[in-house]
Amino acid sequence: MTADARRALAGEKAHVLAEALPYIRDFSGKTVVIKYGGHAMESAELAEYFAQDVVLMRLVGMNPVVVHGGGPQITDLMRRLGKEPEFVDGQRVTDAETVDIARMALVGKVNRDVVVSLNQHGSYAVGLSGEDAGLIAVTPRDERLGFVGDVAAIDPSILHRLLNEEFIPVIATIGMDETGQAYNVNADAVAGAIAEALHAEKLVYLTDVAGVYANFPDEDSLVAQIDADGLDALVADGKASAGMIPKLVSCVRALRNGVTRAHILDGRVPHALLLEFFTREGIGTMVSGDAGPRVGETS
Amino acid sequence: MTADARRALAGEKAHVLAEALPYIRDFSGKTVVIKYGGHAMESAELAEYFAQDVVLMRLVGMNPVVVHGGGPQITDLMRRLGKEPEFVDGQRVTDAETVDIARMALVGKVNRDVVVSLNQHGSYAVGLSGEDAGLIAVTPRDERLGFVGDVAAIDPSILHRLLNEEFIPVIATIGMDETGQAYNVNADAVAGAIAEALHAEKLVYLTDVAGVYANFPDEDSLVAQIDADGLDALVADGKASAGMIPKLVSCVRALRNGVTRAHILDGRVPHALLLEFFTREGIGTMVSGDAGPRVGETS
Amino acid sequence: MTADARRALAGEKAHVLAEALPYIRDFSGKTVVIKYGGHAMESAELAEYFAQDVVLMRLVGMNPVVVHGGGPQITDLMRRLGKEPEFVDGQRVTDAETVDIARMALVGKVNRDVVVSLNQHGSYAVGLSGEDAGLIAVTPRDERLGFVGDVAAIDPSILHRLLNEEFIPVIATIGMDETGQAYNVNADAVAGAIAEALHAEKLVYLTDVAGVYANFPDEDSLVAQIDADGLDALVADGKASAGMIPKLVSCVRALRNGVTRAHILDGRVPHALLLEFFTREGIGTMVSGDAGPRVGETS
Amino acid sequence: MTADARRALAGEKAHVLAEALPYIRDFSGKTVVIKYGGHAMESAELAEYFAQDVVLMRLVGMNPVVVHGGGPQITDLMRRLGKEPEFVDGQRVTDAETVDIARMALVGKVNRDVVVSLNQHGSYAVGLSGEDAGLIAVTPRDERLGFVGDVAAIDPSILHRLLNEEFIPVIATIGMDETGQAYNVNADAVAGAIAEALHAEKLVYLTDVAGVYANFPDEDSLVAQIDADGLDALVADGKASAGMIPKLVSCVRALRNGVTRAHILDGRVPHALLLEFFTREGIGTMVSGDAGPRVGETS
Amino acid sequence: MTADARRALAGEKAHVLAEALPYIRDFSGKTVVIKYGGHAMESAELAEYFAQDVVLMRLVGMNPVVVHGGGPQITDLMRRLGKEPEFVDGQRVTDAETVDIARMALVGKVNRDVVVSLNQHGSYAVGLSGEDAGLIAVTPRDERLGFVGDVAAIDPSILHRLLNEEFIPVIATIGMDETGQAYNVNADAVAGAIAEALHAEKLVYLTDVAGVYANFPDEDSLVAQIDADGLDALVADGKASAGMIPKLVSCVRALRNGVTRAHILDGRVPHALLLEFFTREGIGTMVSGDAGPRVGETS
Amino acid sequence: MTADARRALAGEKAHVLAEALPYIRDFSGKTVVIKYGGHAMESAELAEYFAQDVVLMRLVGMNPVVVHGGGPQITDLMRRLGKEPEFVDGQRVTDAETVDIARMALVGKVNRDVVVSLNQHGSYAVGLSGEDAGLIAVTPRDERLGFVGDVAAIDPSILHRLLNEEFIPVIATIGMDETGQAYNVNADAVAGAIAEALHAEKLVYLTDVAGVYANFPDEDSLVAQIDADGLDALVADGKASAGMIPKLVSCVRALRNGVTRAHILDGRVPHALLLEFFTREGIGTMVSGDAGPRVGETS
Repeated sequence: MTADARRALAGEKAHVLAEALPYIRDFSGKTVVIKYGGHAMESAELAEYFAQDVVLMRLVGMNPVVVHGGGPQITDLMRRLGKEPEFVDGQRVTDAETVDIARMALVGKVNRDVVVSLNQHGSYAVGLSGEDAGLIAVTPRDERLGFVGDVAAIDPSILHRLLNEEFIPVIATIGMDETGQAYNVNADAVAGAIAEALHAEKLVYLTDVAGVYANFPDEDSLVAQIDADGLDALVADGKASAGMIPKLVSCVRALRNGVTRAHILDGRVPHALLLEFFTREGIGTMVSGDAGPRVGETS
Repeated sequence: MTADARRALAGEKAHVLAEALPYIRDFSGKTVVIKYGGHAMESAELAEYFAQDVVLMRLVGMNPVVVHGGGPQITDLMRRLGKEPEFVDGQRVTDAETVDIARMALVGKVNRDVVVSLNQHGSYAVGLSGEDAGLIAVTPRDERLGFVGDVAAIDPSILHRLLNEEFIPVIATIGMDETGQAYNVNADAVAGAIAEALHAEKLVYLTDVAGVYANFPDEDSLVAQIDADGLDALVADGKASAGMIPKLVSCVRALRNGVTRAHILDGRVPHALLLEFFTREGIGTMVSGDAGPRVGETS
Repeated sequence: MTADARRALAGEKAHVLAEALPYIRDFSGKTVVIKYGGHAMESAELAEYFAQDVVLMRLVGMNPVVVHGGGPQITDLMRRLGKEPEFVDGQRVTDAETVDIARMALVGKVNRDVVVSLNQHGSYAVGLSGEDAGLIAVTPRDERLGFVGDVAAIDPSILHRLLNEEFIPVIATIGMDETGQAYNVNADAVAGAIAEALHAEKLVYLTDVAGVYANFPDEDSLVAQIDADGLDALVADGKASAGMIPKLVSCVRALRNGVTRAHILDGRVPHALLLEFFTREGIGTMVSGDAGPRVGETS
Repeated sequence: MTADARRALAGEKAHVLAEALPYIRDFSGKTVVIKYGGHAMESAELAEYFAQDVVLMRLVGMNPVVVHGGGPQITDLMRRLGKEPEFVDGQRVTDAETVDIARMALVGKVNRDVVVSLNQHGSYAVGLSGEDAGLIAVTPRDERLGFVGDVAAIDPSILHRLLNEEFIPVIATIGMDETGQAYNVNADAVAGAIAEALHAEKLVYLTDVAGVYANFPDEDSLVAQIDADGLDALVADGKASAGMIPKLVSCVRALRNGVTRAHILDGRVPHALLLEFFTREGIGTMVSGDAGPRVGETS
Repeated sequence: MTADARRALAGEKAHVLAEALPYIRDFSGKTVVIKYGGHAMESAELAEYFAQDVVLMRLVGMNPVVVHGGGPQITDLMRRLGKEPEFVDGQRVTDAETVDIARMALVGKVNRDVVVSLNQHGSYAVGLSGEDAGLIAVTPRDERLGFVGDVAAIDPSILHRLLNEEFIPVIATIGMDETGQAYNVNADAVAGAIAEALHAEKLVYLTDVAGVYANFPDEDSLVAQIDADGLDALVADGKASAGMIPKLVSCVRALRNGVTRAHILDGRVPHALLLEFFTREGIGTMVSGDAGPRVGETS
Repeated sequence: MTADARRALAGEKAHVLAEALPYIRDFSGKTVVIKYGGHAMESAELAEYFAQDVVLMRLVGMNPVVVHGGGPQITDLMRRLGKEPEFVDGQRVTDAETVDIARMALVGKVNRDVVVSLNQHGSYAVGLSGEDAGLIAVTPRDERLGFVGDVAAIDPSILHRLLNEEFIPVIATIGMDETGQAYNVNADAVAGAIAEALHAEKLVYLTDVAGVYANFPDEDSLVAQIDADGLDALVADGKASAGMIPKLVSCVRALRNGVTRAHILDGRVPHALLLEFFTREGIGTMVSGDAGPRVGETS
């Protein structure tokens, strides 16, 4: 590279960093709950980018909280243990053995991998299960499903204590009923409920699509910005994909209970979180209660 | 029960509580590392007593830290996954798949069960792996064993931050080398190293024997009190049982590096911790650097 | 004692300690105001038990506050100084010399003895008079009685500052009017008023009877549990003993002003406080605003 | 008064206040132990001035600690109780009854009066005895004297905790041996020992003389400034009065153990403390280790 | 001076100091905003007295905040730079060059001199401009005047942070509009607005007159005490001097927005602040919302 | 721009941000003293970049401290006031009027402009002069130069208090002798002395050259990395430019007194600070005590 080219490159780098200033300033001290999953979790390269992004958020003063499930990993471990998964209406039937396997897969494998990956950059992450300190209390969803729970209550005190000490909580979505029995819980719903309980500034879903479509699966109908009422209408009108519905429902509920903004981001894009939080190029779909402009946005 | 009998019983209860006063006073603010395992972990009833004891220690102002392994649970999950354990010189050969299974068993099953059991009494415990925040750094022990590690260094900062917030750390003994690779580590050794790193007041091993024997397996040779040099001699003279040796070696090392006292307790005795810490009836074997009298003891 | 007997005894001890767990947990951080007096104060043995109980409460995280009077000790010192006590309607006529003698007896003798007894177990207690830092402001009760005061106001700030530093305040019930003149004040009334001012969890009277009787002096009419309205009725119906009336009136007032529970305990029972607070065997009479179940009680 | 006279007076007042500035600045945060006694304690007017001075010291950020005895008050109460004081070599023979009377007189009367007087100006003072929290540990002086103690050790932790909360500790000089037995202790010696234990900036004796005389009782030999060696010589040469000797000996010891300066002030002068601390007119005798200039002094 | 005269003088000094006690007590922790200007700022001697007074206020626990303008200094620098001041309706026409000169005069000269003068007594003062940290936001007053601003908003956070660290903020009254343009602002108005924003206990104007006159310029009509309604009436009735009007208007507004008391003091009197705050001789005019008595005043 | 181009650009932005992670982590909590001046201060565009860089450093947890002089601005104001600058050996002769002008120019103009520029991004900067709180104590350099001072001592306590509150101190290099007289001081020397007094991690000089040349003015002799001894040699061998000498001398001294690294950066490069601190492209010359590798550097 010539000296001039090097100089030009350096100049561009500097501008990118400087461009991040207003975002870093405005998000300092804010809590962001990130539902992590899909391709972003399965690709080793994307997982490393994710870890860098979350640690950087922590370093510039934000309070990221990571929530993850791990359906494929549960299925995989079940099969290795010679147990064929069964589904009712698309939901996994979860007997006592299955919940135990789910716990091993989520807490002993997925959660571990996420925590280890974040901590390659220093000492930041602590792994949690929803069983810890009453974090996720559940009620059974449907007796045909066995130990599949709905969020009954979130006790965020353990998260506050960990955030006080500047940890990044990484939460595996196993919940507990009042007898101490473990349940598998939908991670999209947990992320929304935790964002609510923490009065988070933002709730972020990392997904395997480009964002919300006004008319799924029409690729030209990608929505850059929408509000809670708009999401409600999409679900009511049957225009949302099946996989998107629990995310959208959780978004709407969280936004109506004090969370400021939600984002459906394309987890397949490298550094999706950095792009959304620290550059002018917001990606995916932003959802607000009031459909106002994005932070740092000029008309 | 007659009123008199009730009154007599009440009187006895009161005396037991009052007897605990000097112990509670003297142990307030002190850190105690407890290696948990064996029968005390396998019996549901003993596990519940253990949970009560540890929570009570926390409630009266002590800082308990729990360390556990789980060999039988690893073997069990390996077999369920169709993999037969192999041993060299009595140590498990641990290939990449085995360490992954060990992690699932220890972090996703054993650790979870201990944490849930403690948290039945409130919001106290947080589960950790040695991979968290650089807690347990390891070096490989022997290339024939694969991913079996020796403790190279303990970074206790995550423990300090959790103790600051009055949590009870529960540590699964998976360690990590400098490349981020997970290893299985001996829990007895980890307990001693953590006690050292925390400058703990006490290091406690809950075992399946009555204590240390001066002349194993002669049952009359149970030792109530001994010092580090005495333990050293027992090991050197070949008088210790094979299972006891790693505990004794770890004790000696910890005592010579700042831990005040160590205890080998009979984990089969209900509430063994409470008896040792809060009554005049010390149980098992107490090991001190200087062979001085027990706290609260009169000549 | 045989080994088996020793083991059985140890087991019982352990169970008593474990039984205290939910009480210790629930009372942690709670403030308890204890009116101390009568036989529990006069017997050297009971006084030592009382000291152990109060220090233990402090050690497990409660904030005990001790209030005491000392009528017999005032009378005794008056007589030694050649001054015969005089009473109007059962209340001591208190001229300037008498209030000075009362102060010497209460502050210089009774308060000292209580403080010294508590501090035999460590550094916990600080003696106070109601004259300190505006703690007890009084108005004269009746001009025929001289310097006998009614509580006009409590300024609890000195207590908060002492509790901040984990002291046990021990309060002699000398009050002060706005000119700085000392008055003797009824200790039962002071205890209630201080519990109110501190928003205490509990107000406890240690007395020389088994508790409240529904139909004094019928011994079979002992009441285990009652509410504030019930106490009111007892007093109104003339069924309370003369000595009990000021306690009952103070209880009712405190309960109606934010104190959660009150207890009339038999101070003649060794370790009455430990039994009431840390075992299932509640003793004496418990008074609540809402007549709900006791902490830790199962139906 | 004419407007001009009023204006002149105001001007003078203002200059006095402004003159105090460097003293207030330099003494801020400093600890001063004041031995209070003699005429300054007996005259109601002087006692009120003393209270104003000490509260003012507290208000401008100093940490005053008051130590007092009360020989005349003990004698008086003994006589009222029909007990004639007995002396050996000028020291009171103190049997069990006498020490109990001393405690009533010092703690229940003198200490109370000092505390009440300070608290007329707000909520500042807390009364203590040397029995509190192990403050003054003693050994018996001489078996002929009975319960007369020498200071064996000072545990200043209770003072630190009270000073943390911005209280003014007022200490009655009853000490305690290791069995919990009370002793009478010389207040001059206690003041010095407490100044030492607190690493006080200053130790002040309020006395009934103008200061130290180089050649007692020659009134022209008043010494304005001297150092520890000088005091030593005065005592050795027999030139100090009997009443002054314990003060001088305590001064020398305190100065040699870390106290910066000591002052022998004339307690008969109104506001002696204010004059010494906040004006250019130092009064009485100042004693330093190094005989350097006074704070705020110009050559 | 004879010994007797010296003693008498010392006694008087002591009485002046003791007289300050209730004022020091009552003002401890209170915030006082002082508009500094006029003769008190121009005379080197008065400026030194002012510095002593403000530092003493800080030392006895008050939070003084100093606000100053500097019209004559601006005019002087303009003339030295060859620029003749121009006025419209008595207000300086302030073009871009003038506001730059004003800034140099106020921040680089007047503010510096005040800060240096305070810091002769230690490390207390920090100089600020209204441009710092959004302290004084302005809107243009009148386009004919150019960069002359009216206070639009005060952001007191920088003052809170400086007061937290026990600094004395000294504020030059340059404000800033939302584009970052500097403006000159009336210092009387700024002082009132800052007192409001800080919920100050007191707002003080140091002026070149004896106080407020009920009937200006009748010297016999000096008012010692008045309330906000009274000031309102004076202004409405045209009885206030032109120079006094902005002060009176600012006083009224501040008092109606939470400031407890305001004072118009004669800055020509040496130590005017000490006299007003710490002696019975209040000077000048005191203005209250409710016309109640002064602190420490007896009827 | 096409969607693909936009995506590629976003990817590059994300990589730049991610690249900053290790630098942000390693510099968190570190203090950096920046000597600001030359072209970077004179160009409006570069000044804005400088402000962004410094605020970003603050936002990611560093403690930047800015030091500036302003020779040209002093000269300019002198000339506008009709006073011709005079130099002796290249140093400005500074009479009383000149120092007053220097103070107006530096504090009232240059310092203001820097502070306002930083605070365009929020509430961060506080302007200081070396006269504040004893920050820069000086001794006269040479009587022919008048009020030109050499740094005699730095009292960094005001900086610690401002950094505690997360302010960015901006320091104009006016110093003060012990009589309170102002002096002009060389800003290069002040920056080094302040870095020393703060035990800063880094000392940075923003200059108008590319860095240090091994053989000035040979452009090919630019040095990327050197140690203190190397700088010493350059100065001794006469190979440094006149303007660079005070910087080099100050660097050497600071590095030998505890500052970890120093940097001579080209202030003409936009965002020079961001490039140096947060990218792999270090610019200019880095000086270390031990010539070790840069943070984040790989061999």
